[in-house]
Amino acid sequence: MSPPPRWLTALSKLFGEYKNANVMQLTTIAEAVPQARSCIVRELISLDGNEHLPIILTTTDIRTPKVEQILANDTVQINWWIEDSMDQFRLTGKASLVPEPGNRVFHSGGTLAFESLLTRGFDWEAKRVQVFDSLSGHMRASWCRPTPGSLMKGGYEEAKDWPETVPTTSGATNEKEKKLVEQALGNFALVLIEPTYVDWVQLGTSPNRRTFFHRGDDGSWTETIVVP
Amino acid sequence: MSPPPRWLTALSKLFGEYKNANVMQLTTIAEAVPQARSCIVRELISLDGNEHLPIILTTTDIRTPKVEQILANDTVQINWWIEDSMDQFRLTGKASLVPEPGNRVFHSGGTLAFESLLTRGFDWEAKRVQVFDSLSGHMRASWCRPTPGSLMKGGYEEAKDWPETVPTTSGATNEKEKKLVEQALGNFALVLIEPTYVDWVQLGTSPNRRTFFHRGDDGSWTETIVVP
Repeated sequence: MSPPPRWLTALSKLFGEYKNANVMQLTTIAEAVPQARSCIVRELISLDGNEHLPIILTTTDIRTPKVEQILANDTVQINWWIEDSMDQFRLTGKASLVPEPGNRVFHSGGTLAFESLLTRGFDWEAKRVQVFDSLSGHMRASWCRPTPGSLMKGGYEEAKDWPETVPTTSGATNEKEKKLVEQALGNFALVLIEPTYVDWVQLGTSPNRRTFFHRGDDGSWTETIVVP
Repeated sequence: MSPPPRWLTALSKLFGEYKNANVMQLTTIAEAVPQARSCIVRELISLDGNEHLPIILTTTDIRTPKVEQILANDTVQINWWIEDSMDQFRLTGKASLVPEPGNRVFHSGGTLAFESLLTRGFDWEAKRVQVFDSLSGHMRASWCRPTPGSLMKGGYEEAKDWPETVPTTSGATNEKEKKLVEQALGNFALVLIEPTYVDWVQLGTSPNRRTFFHRGDDGSWTETIVVP
């Protein structure tokens, strides 16, 4: 077991400390055009005994372009800017996807932590349902809308037909609600990013500091102090 | 003359209204890996009579990897997340670079606004100096450090030799300060992004709203209401 790298200790602390520190920017590529969108980090998963191999968990609608982009090129970068402390963490790594059972769990080579969890028989579907249930009813309802980015021919009026809230998997009290839960859960997927390279810039310190962290093939991290 | 697109009116208002609304994420590509970093927007430049063709101005150290990345692929995306209003603007377009005179101003085709300014004889060097002078002395000093991202063999101790502040172009009072200004200004460049495609998501409205905006070859914008 290796100790957690310094960047992870710092990031975990800030993530717990500041209200808005759960928003990061997930970047992918679509046909030679870089793509960035704000995502909410729901959890930092660390394996028992492997606390140096974190997985960053965010969620998506399976119908959004970022899913297709990850399937085409699963090397992504997260830019995690924490305004309150003036820290920037740029995490590069592979993204994995956990959609509803029946759809293939997507992951590629080099995802040490993700593969280790799979080998241990980690129940990704239970995790998916747990995260689904932990979100707001309004958020769950967003996965019952028509495909994100599709044309609204009737303009904003169309949105009046969308459900405003969807219960948890155990909270549906009638057939209509059960169908909404099924639909939402069907479009809901976990996005799991396993960083192998981290660029940490500390603008809150004087002088500023910047450190690169590389993860080796054995999962251990090396640290390089560089010019900010 | 076309009227400014709705996204620009909304973004300009928020940019002026909220303290932290000047931070955006600029994304580029480095050898099939997407790259994102936080940048501060210093200005939204609009031509007289061409208020529908804005240019987003941010700055860089000419020695950073983003410059090389823009030279290799100048189609970039900005993700501009405004926490206070829960608005996300994703702007895709071409980036241009204005380094010190002697280095080539870089811009490619399709930059209607940028080219129009060049044709009119807009003084980019004057703009570069004006922006340089408007920044903090601490910020200017950052361009006198060794190359960003280069190894600090001596660790954080090395930073003690870096200047803490650098005066404005007219503020140097001795030879040493003059040299620092010259060095900082030499490494300082403007990055100008001219959006041609905008994806505006309004998470602060209920129901949420999302609109795509495309700029045509004549510079006029069309708007499409889509599912968030």
